[in-house]
Amino acid sequence: MFRQVVVYQWAEGVSSEAKQAFRDALDEMRAIPELLAMTSGDDAGHFDDNFDFVVVADFADFAAARRYVAHPLHQTYIRDHASRVIGKRIIVQHDWADPIPR
Amino acid sequence: MFRQVVVYQWAEGVSSEAKQAFRDALDEMRAIPELLAMTSGDDAGHFDDNFDFVVVADFADFAAARRYVAHPLHQTYIRDHASRVIGKRIIVQHDWADPIPR
Repeated sequence: MFRQVVVYQWAEGVSSEAKQAFRDALDEMRAIPELLAMTSGDDAGHFDDNFDFVVVADFADFAAARRYVAHPLHQTYIRDHASRVIGKRIIVQHDWADPIPR
Repeated sequence: MFRQVVVYQWAEGVSSEAKQAFRDALDEMRAIPELLAMTSGDDAGHFDDNFDFVVVADFADFAAARRYVAHPLHQTYIRDHASRVIGKRIIVQHDWADPIPR
């Protein structure tokens, strides 16, 4: 398994409608077969320094993750949504041997 | 479920031994009963801008996550390891309704 974690900070002045369109475009990418599992969520707001949104996505391997990024649905997600609403983005990717976390 | 995602950047000049002691202290926290699931890993190194390490941890709720932070094993982890090896740390926390991600 290959896990990709991305934490996001919204750009300034982004409307709630644009954020929701971003979330919807993210959900539409579940149709991409290389995406084995995905969780995401808005920060719960307990701490001021937290970033605003996170996506945890799992793939078979790095090559599958690259095919996901190249998929038309992902290209739409970047062009029409992420590029408009995201201010900062930080990624960590790692291999993950255990399919049942504990 | 309450998910806590933390991405880390190592401080400058940290030894590989200190990083491994940090990873070991993280693994020891699996004994804390509030920690329902945890995955972690070093960045795979595919992209220069990525951070260096990530932890994804799941709890029943925010109160359980706070008890985990207050646990002596977590206090040791912060005092003896994280405070010495971590340069930057970014957190996102979110409620998570679906126990089986897809």
